[in-house]
Amino acid sequence: MKKKNKQPLILLTNDDGVDAKGIRALLEVVKEFGRVVMVAPAVGRSGMSHAITFNTPLRIRRIYQDAGVEIYRCNGTPVDCVKMAQRHLLKNEKIDLLVSGINQGANTSTSTHYSGTVAAAMEGCINGLKAVAFSVVNYSSPADCNAALEVAKTLIPQLLAKKLPEYVCLNVNVPAVPMSDIKGYKITRQANNYWIEDMHERKDPMGRPYFWMEGDMYKADKGRDTDQWAVTHNYVSVTPIKSDLTAHETIEELKQWKLKK
Amino acid sequence: MKKKNKQPLILLTNDDGVDAKGIRALLEVVKEFGRVVMVAPAVGRSGMSHAITFNTPLRIRRIYQDAGVEIYRCNGTPVDCVKMAQRHLLKNEKIDLLVSGINQGANTSTSTHYSGTVAAAMEGCINGLKAVAFSVVNYSSPADCNAALEVAKTLIPQLLAKKLPEYVCLNVNVPAVPMSDIKGYKITRQANNYWIEDMHERKDPMGRPYFWMEGDMYKADKGRDTDQWAVTHNYVSVTPIKSDLTAHETIEELKQWKLKK
Repeated sequence: MKKKNKQPLILLTNDDGVDAKGIRALLEVVKEFGRVVMVAPAVGRSGMSHAITFNTPLRIRRIYQDAGVEIYRCNGTPVDCVKMAQRHLLKNEKIDLLVSGINQGANTSTSTHYSGTVAAAMEGCINGLKAVAFSVVNYSSPADCNAALEVAKTLIPQLLAKKLPEYVCLNVNVPAVPMSDIKGYKITRQANNYWIEDMHERKDPMGRPYFWMEGDMYKADKGRDTDQWAVTHNYVSVTPIKSDLTAHETIEELKQWKLKK
Repeated sequence: MKKKNKQPLILLTNDDGVDAKGIRALLEVVKEFGRVVMVAPAVGRSGMSHAITFNTPLRIRRIYQDAGVEIYRCNGTPVDCVKMAQRHLLKNEKIDLLVSGINQGANTSTSTHYSGTVAAAMEGCINGLKAVAFSVVNYSSPADCNAALEVAKTLIPQLLAKKLPEYVCLNVNVPAVPMSDIKGYKITRQANNYWIEDMHERKDPMGRPYFWMEGDMYKADKGRDTDQWAVTHNYVSVTPIKSDLTAHETIEELKQWKLKK
């Protein structure tokens, strides 16, 4: 047991929920590299972004414990799960790596903003943890995660061994093809694309309108150095992302505005 | 009425909800500069970040209409409100400016990530709109918004007249003091601070634990060019923020990692 404590401590979470195939498959990979504490939403919380819960109480419950693996389900968002792990469950321990995923569906381009999977990694990053989010560009349920699992086996030991710059984490997207068809890795930037939503209007039995949001990604960014280009061309996309949202290059321009009392 | 149509079209939203004092006061300022369509959450949705709703239906209802002002309440998140406005209500019209706020409470430093107010502005920015978020560093309810209203009167006409770089919007934070005590404006960067949460454990009547999340901002970043520094020293903070999360400066470093199939 003493030896166990010297293993890396890995926090595992996701946004598809504690029972999702993606996180369960990833757990089997991650536990080979250290002690794993998994804290995941009780139900799917896709599209929750960096949302936090402070107007209603949080609940957390351990649902599994074995040598080197503990699993908790939490009623909160993905970011709440990270906070509950870091500030409550593991507050006296050093977390060596936060792993989020494997998400079912791409988190490329501006989808990065909507993703609970990426936000969980970003939350770790904001709080000083090394962190990585894994997603597969596959919307079938359950999505085939095999290539993403191979990618995790490659990246996790390097993440444990290397340093990332302060306030930077990794957003990894894996194409929806077998590993044999993947051409390699690309270090990418986030594409400047955006969703164009269609609001499907229906009527409820009382005749009142309601709307389902659906959309398509508009590919405005033609760059070949983007996350979107990489996954479309069967490369694994690894995008370093940071918590600093400042448009530093705009600061001098704004100083020319007439802003006086 | 024909003239009205040539006025700027301003979309107004917030995260404190359609009845919050901050947005109602801001409406009175904003309507002086153009036609206003206000779409705000039916209830307070603070801390919702960039969350979107696609697993349950959205509802929207017009609750007020007068010359140049329409008010809608929506059951979704702040970002849902922007999407409903841009993709449904106003899909055939050019929105000249998106204004979000006035939020009760600071959205400086990494609070920027949790904020629904800022996310609403960012959502507009992702979709090609000029956008600004206003917050007051005041947590009393209702917060005094008078200085922030003066700031809005200064900034909104300039936003309407000038261009911002593509995919950049403004995050404005106003100190909790009267305008007479405000020293001026600072163009700032987002401080690299973070929250340290305390998870207050209680027991429900069945003896089961639940937790309230509360926290304090840890001031790790001592820079005098930050949003946090500005508001602490009675300056209005104007931070340009961007939708591109890429840590561009880390791309070359990551290319040295051993990432082969």
